[in-house]
Amino acid sequence: MKEKEFIKAIISTLKSNYIGDDCAYLKDLGIVISQDSLVEDVHFKRELISPYQLGYKSVMVNISDICASGGEPKYITISLSLPKDTKVDFVKDFYKGAKKACNNVEIVGGDITGSDKIFVSVTAIGSSKNRKISSRGNAKPGYKVIVSGEHGSSAYGLNLLLKGENNPSKFIDAHLMPKAQVDFSKQIATKIKEDYAMMDSSDGLADALYQIASASNVTISVDTNKIPHDKTVDMETVLYGGEDYQIIAAVPENFLQKISNYTIIGDVEEGPANLKIDGVINTEVENKLYNHF
Amino acid sequence: MKEKEFIKAIISTLKSNYIGDDCAYLKDLGIVISQDSLVEDVHFKRELISPYQLGYKSVMVNISDICASGGEPKYITISLSLPKDTKVDFVKDFYKGAKKACNNVEIVGGDITGSDKIFVSVTAIGSSKNRKISSRGNAKPGYKVIVSGEHGSSAYGLNLLLKGENNPSKFIDAHLMPKAQVDFSKQIATKIKEDYAMMDSSDGLADALYQIASASNVTISVDTNKIPHDKTVDMETVLYGGEDYQIIAAVPENFLQKISNYTIIGDVEEGPANLKIDGVINTEVENKLYNHF
Repeated sequence: MKEKEFIKAIISTLKSNYIGDDCAYLKDLGIVISQDSLVEDVHFKRELISPYQLGYKSVMVNISDICASGGEPKYITISLSLPKDTKVDFVKDFYKGAKKACNNVEIVGGDITGSDKIFVSVTAIGSSKNRKISSRGNAKPGYKVIVSGEHGSSAYGLNLLLKGENNPSKFIDAHLMPKAQVDFSKQIATKIKEDYAMMDSSDGLADALYQIASASNVTISVDTNKIPHDKTVDMETVLYGGEDYQIIAAVPENFLQKISNYTIIGDVEEGPANLKIDGVINTEVENKLYNHF
Repeated sequence: MKEKEFIKAIISTLKSNYIGDDCAYLKDLGIVISQDSLVEDVHFKRELISPYQLGYKSVMVNISDICASGGEPKYITISLSLPKDTKVDFVKDFYKGAKKACNNVEIVGGDITGSDKIFVSVTAIGSSKNRKISSRGNAKPGYKVIVSGEHGSSAYGLNLLLKGENNPSKFIDAHLMPKAQVDFSKQIATKIKEDYAMMDSSDGLADALYQIASASNVTISVDTNKIPHDKTVDMETVLYGGEDYQIIAAVPENFLQKISNYTIIGDVEEGPANLKIDGVINTEVENKLYNHF
């Protein structure tokens, strides 16, 4: 798994405390920042996503990262690289989609350059004002594991698209036009006093749970019967499919009375760092991690 | 010129006030932000730049953007996309170079993904605390036009490299290992009270002067005899060669007593928006703009 090897090399070269969470929390500036790229033929196929959808999704995945940190999404910059034969309409539609994803977030800059393939790199900035910022290393034994909504629909939709199908629209939309959990994450980050762990399910539910377990050195135990999902979607896809952009959080049990619209799917237990699914320690998650390399 | 057409499409789609300067100034957060990409075979050739130099330059050009805004460079995120056959040593050397460019700036995040060609997108964050932020639209008649150092050396160095030459090192280094004018921009941004225009010469001296003239609706008149440059380098390259990352500023004349190490190269006059070189209105600059599309 080359991505991991590369990340190890980066960490050992930089010796930074910041690499680890999806967002970096820059306390002195009161902001969180996230940067993510979408590369043609790695993250998307041009035939399967419209310019509008690509613009939308590029922005939304970064807004989701800010939400997962607990920050308030505020500003976006977009670096867009396009092949020479790209039509102006592509750029217009891309930015219409990007704007659609923004709601109150503002696109404030970036650049546009040439390239062989389409390359999008988006940076999102959030404010930590009146928010408590999460870290995946903050889960503690006794905490409850909650999620904001259904898992697996996006990956199921991608499989439909790959088979040339465009229905049911629920799954297609889940993949092409996902929604960041802005309100769900806001209620947690504005109301919680204790340290807590929060991630989005960009790389899948099992991945997020495993990352929190590893960073917090705890065992996370989940009950698959409790995981919200469409009954059409198999549990393998629910657990390992990525890009639903739901929120996964580990919070103190007594905090739950302050929020709504959550589903409890499991518990945080004493370490070692493990993911237990229906009582069985999962040894596959590391191999199954949604990986773009 | 397709880049311009694309930028027009972006501006008309977004209807944003932010697009225009190299950095966006986010007043409510007290920060400036810049994002720039370097694409293999568009901005650089793999044979002509080492991974260390690429990491260094990717970071430095963004630090230079923050300096040109008047902000204090603080944090960097890096999105790196690499072909599958890339060796771990490439990543290590890239990040060593990136770190070298940072000085007090900290690399706090980003991502790493696969791609066909090397693609680097860097975001830089600066603080506006105790700084007055510049805008290219702030030049006023009567202001003096100053620069921080020599122009044309980087483009001259690139031409040497393209011819397979590696000497003189002055020019090669100017192209591969440019230095952002951190101290020069700091003295201006921390001492000035009046509105002022400032840019770096990433796209060349004439381009920067023309951009300031256009955004400020003034005529900028420069004297080529006064432009600092190595005498080996011809005036065409001094004016139109890019990537020197020197600072170009238009400031009130009476402010100059507060700063040092500058060279006055011209004056800001009443509009219309024009660049006058040695008394002659320059009509070529728009066509000669350093362009990556």
